[in-house]
Amino acid sequence: MRYVMLVSYDGTEFCGWQIQPGKRTVQGELERAAAALFGVPVSVTGSGRTDAGVHAAGQVCHFDAETNIPAERLCLCFDRLLPPDVRVLASAAAEAGFDCSRRAKRKTYVYFAYHAPCELPLYSRYGAFLKAACDADRMRSAARLLIGEHDFAAFRALGSSAKTTVRTVYSVGVEEIPLCGGRGYRVAVCGNGFLYNMVRVIAGELFAVGMGLRGEEDILRAFATGKRECLAGTMPAKGLTLLAVEYGAPLFQNAN
Amino acid sequence: MRYVMLVSYDGTEFCGWQIQPGKRTVQGELERAAAALFGVPVSVTGSGRTDAGVHAAGQVCHFDAETNIPAERLCLCFDRLLPPDVRVLASAAAEAGFDCSRRAKRKTYVYFAYHAPCELPLYSRYGAFLKAACDADRMRSAARLLIGEHDFAAFRALGSSAKTTVRTVYSVGVEEIPLCGGRGYRVAVCGNGFLYNMVRVIAGELFAVGMGLRGEEDILRAFATGKRECLAGTMPAKGLTLLAVEYGAPLFQNAN
Repeated sequence: MRYVMLVSYDGTEFCGWQIQPGKRTVQGELERAAAALFGVPVSVTGSGRTDAGVHAAGQVCHFDAETNIPAERLCLCFDRLLPPDVRVLASAAAEAGFDCSRRAKRKTYVYFAYHAPCELPLYSRYGAFLKAACDADRMRSAARLLIGEHDFAAFRALGSSAKTTVRTVYSVGVEEIPLCGGRGYRVAVCGNGFLYNMVRVIAGELFAVGMGLRGEEDILRAFATGKRECLAGTMPAKGLTLLAVEYGAPLFQNAN
Repeated sequence: MRYVMLVSYDGTEFCGWQIQPGKRTVQGELERAAAALFGVPVSVTGSGRTDAGVHAAGQVCHFDAETNIPAERLCLCFDRLLPPDVRVLASAAAEAGFDCSRRAKRKTYVYFAYHAPCELPLYSRYGAFLKAACDADRMRSAARLLIGEHDFAAFRALGSSAKTTVRTVYSVGVEEIPLCGGRGYRVAVCGNGFLYNMVRVIAGELFAVGMGLRGEEDILRAFATGKRECLAGTMPAKGLTLLAVEYGAPLFQNAN
């Protein structure tokens, strides 16, 4: 029987999603819990990998198991076996062969960064420090260039590979948040899929535009040339959170 | 010379603000940094104490020192000497005898709690778990009863003492925030001062009202009788953040 689960984690203490020998990973913790629960090795597949330090509010994964435990109670069983920085919020039965990676229709990531006189203790896990304040309207104007189907070849880590670098971005929201002694900026990006580091490159470019260090012409040149060096630096992992993965229909009854 | 500083800290790893022998406290860290910086023991006074686990975005403190360092650069010197979970955002000279506790005109605290199928890793430091969802409109309606000058004797920890239990609450805001798999509630309380545990008692009562476990009549009874037992339980420390302390005029040029 195939099952799907909705998973949240604080990425701070994880070496990312993907299992690696000798490293603490989210997939590793889930597979360890699944093996303890079902008594056999279980392979857990995520909707996508997240890097070391990246967080998830609503990651989705699937696995196969034979069990008498009702599907919607599996989340409780996992949570008893998992460390507190990863939690299963919901579980459900899925159709045979349902692949939570290939069937994902939309993903939403949020990037949070702030400018303040110094690094702020309350954002040390979930926000990146910016050296200057940003003009959110400039960011919003530049963000509009990203919307639609484009070749995002320039918007990924150098050396990464993918069959195609064409992706569709449905929306990019920029929200400015007042902080004591500073200003925060929340960039939410929704698309049909993302290349490696794509959201962190988009965020870095938008913050650079917001600070006046770059302009919309750089984004147009990046699309035209496909060259990574047209764009600003990749933002650090800790500001990034995978907010939600959406499918054609809701996977879970009581969540998402 | 008297100086004032704007301080932020993540309360998770602190036994509160107030210095205690053998315990890690915010005041203790600041006094240790001040002694290292000025070469003599320095007493640092906060605008008020915060409990173990309570956070601060904008706490204010004062101290006396003789130094050639320009007042607005003191914050940088402190930050080199402090651990990363406490930061000085701004520093300034103050008039002789300025007392950041007695002269505080308004304080704003924020309490964050959420309902979800389980405790969420991304809110484990800064949010409290609620067993049920809340009706934010019920909370807002009850919150209006708190506004104004009242005897808040019932709204404090049992056994605590204060010269007077009359305080003025200027505003109570209730914001509902959608979370993946749940709902968050942000309660912001602004007043001229707060009794021991008062914000955590107010938050607990508003959440209980929001869940339908209590009604506005309980708040009216609490005001009429001054009895703590009229109200719901005190919320845990980790959901509470001291957002700002305000004085008649801004204390710092570039912050607050």
